[in-house]
Amino acid sequence: MAPEEQVKIREVGPRDGFQNEPEQIGTEDKIRLVDALARTGLKRIEVTSFVRADVLPQLADAAEVLQGIDVPDDVSLSVLVPNERGLDKALEHRDRFHEVGVFLSASETHNMKNINRPVDDSLATIERMLPRILDAGLYCEAVIAVSFGCPYDGHVDPNRVLDLAERIAAAGAKELGFGDTTGMANPRQVGEFFALAQERLPGVELTAHFPNTRGQGLANVLAALNAGIRSFESSFGELGGCPVPPGSTGNIATEDLLSMLHEMGYETGVDLEKLLAASRDAQEVLGRPLGSHVLVAGPVSWADD
Amino acid sequence: MAPEEQVKIREVGPRDGFQNEPEQIGTEDKIRLVDALARTGLKRIEVTSFVRADVLPQLADAAEVLQGIDVPDDVSLSVLVPNERGLDKALEHRDRFHEVGVFLSASETHNMKNINRPVDDSLATIERMLPRILDAGLYCEAVIAVSFGCPYDGHVDPNRVLDLAERIAAAGAKELGFGDTTGMANPRQVGEFFALAQERLPGVELTAHFPNTRGQGLANVLAALNAGIRSFESSFGELGGCPVPPGSTGNIATEDLLSMLHEMGYETGVDLEKLLAASRDAQEVLGRPLGSHVLVAGPVSWADD
Repeated sequence: MAPEEQVKIREVGPRDGFQNEPEQIGTEDKIRLVDALARTGLKRIEVTSFVRADVLPQLADAAEVLQGIDVPDDVSLSVLVPNERGLDKALEHRDRFHEVGVFLSASETHNMKNINRPVDDSLATIERMLPRILDAGLYCEAVIAVSFGCPYDGHVDPNRVLDLAERIAAAGAKELGFGDTTGMANPRQVGEFFALAQERLPGVELTAHFPNTRGQGLANVLAALNAGIRSFESSFGELGGCPVPPGSTGNIATEDLLSMLHEMGYETGVDLEKLLAASRDAQEVLGRPLGSHVLVAGPVSWADD
Repeated sequence: MAPEEQVKIREVGPRDGFQNEPEQIGTEDKIRLVDALARTGLKRIEVTSFVRADVLPQLADAAEVLQGIDVPDDVSLSVLVPNERGLDKALEHRDRFHEVGVFLSASETHNMKNINRPVDDSLATIERMLPRILDAGLYCEAVIAVSFGCPYDGHVDPNRVLDLAERIAAAGAKELGFGDTTGMANPRQVGEFFALAQERLPGVELTAHFPNTRGQGLANVLAALNAGIRSFESSFGELGGCPVPPGSTGNIATEDLLSMLHEMGYETGVDLEKLLAASRDAQEVLGRPLGSHVLVAGPVSWADD
């Protein structure tokens, strides 16, 4: 399989998905689901986040989940940290994960509403955290939220997003993720953005993170693929969203993404049936139908294959 | 606006959507919804189908709906007919519509299960109906179902689909629609198919009809757009599907399609807010949440516009 036909997927459901669930999910359920995801062929899983328990009680068991899971050696686990206190707590469990995720928003208002500080402060924090992350021998992905538009501030200049990205890459992040946090991106914009991003960030892994808020998630993936992007984030069962603004809906479903990629001839290394089994388990745990299409319709079945 | 930036949409919800509803929809509700759709800027609406009432009781009021609606002069209304008896009945109301839709399946098994006859019989029927449709001064779109794959027979050779399309175009159909009836198409296949279709069918309007069964509907639209296709069919509220096999889910939602097209800079002439009002009305009539994303999330709102 040619390298350009290989696509990387980071499963973010256990963090991005679970954190948006109003009912507390049991730690044992989380551990079982991460263990199952890690046996689907997924090579990147965002497991949890080290945030203040009063801010996000759903993820207060971050340490217990990390200690409890048992995954194959070739699966790279990441934890998200919002700030240096979170990084301190994460590093207490340094031997239980491989990557640290950091984030900020491209717009002032979204950054303020999401983490209550100006973008420049977040950038400075990330620049302080990166040497510590790298010194600990960890890989770092930095995600820039609202990269394609902000529900509060409107259009976001791609060059502003890429200025931030360049600063963060210069500080040592090996991977930059671009989030369409509230589902405002369109495929034309996505194609243009990633063409520019590849010019401005040579040698940096570029990852696209699309929710399916307006049903365009996979169309945006296609536009990013056509622009040469080969790394995506998604959530099993179409879990997830963003805490602000209310009503922001889930990420593209990993199973829908896999179905499209595999039918197009891309190689992901992930077993769709095993992934669907994990989503069905999550559906049982959450006690409601999940939004993924392939979970309802089943994989494409070619009768003559 | 350059012609290549203009996209035509045929709203098929009143036929393709309503016919899949198990509870009988009142004739007055249907009339009100078609009248509302016709005032959104949509220029093509498939209103109903003339089929045997015992086969499809939901559309037994086809004549009453056609007689009751009151739409602007520039809206082209179509009725679908499965056979010559249907055409006979439709032509009794010749002054109430402008287009006749005919259809067959690209695969033998789907055609047999859907309309209980071999593909060759359906083709011969269409060839007999077309002179009558044209003599009556009507426009004809012919839709080829399962053009991108059949759940019973598997892969469908694009050249077989296009052989059928050429025969039907030669008989006088001005427009060929290609249906991904059960949601098996992927964007790579769609792009290749429509590149070939445009070579083989010069001068014929080519229309894509995608359901959102596996969440890829808009990604397939994007692939068709990139291949040069500028005509699509969709259902307000993501209504619709196909009677066989069970579980086939709805068409792409007209509001989701509009949102993507408008954000990409394409011109449709349709007012998204008015279309959403019609979908909300349909949701009330049907008494259940509809599957459209933009109906839930609302249109993209650019705070700085």
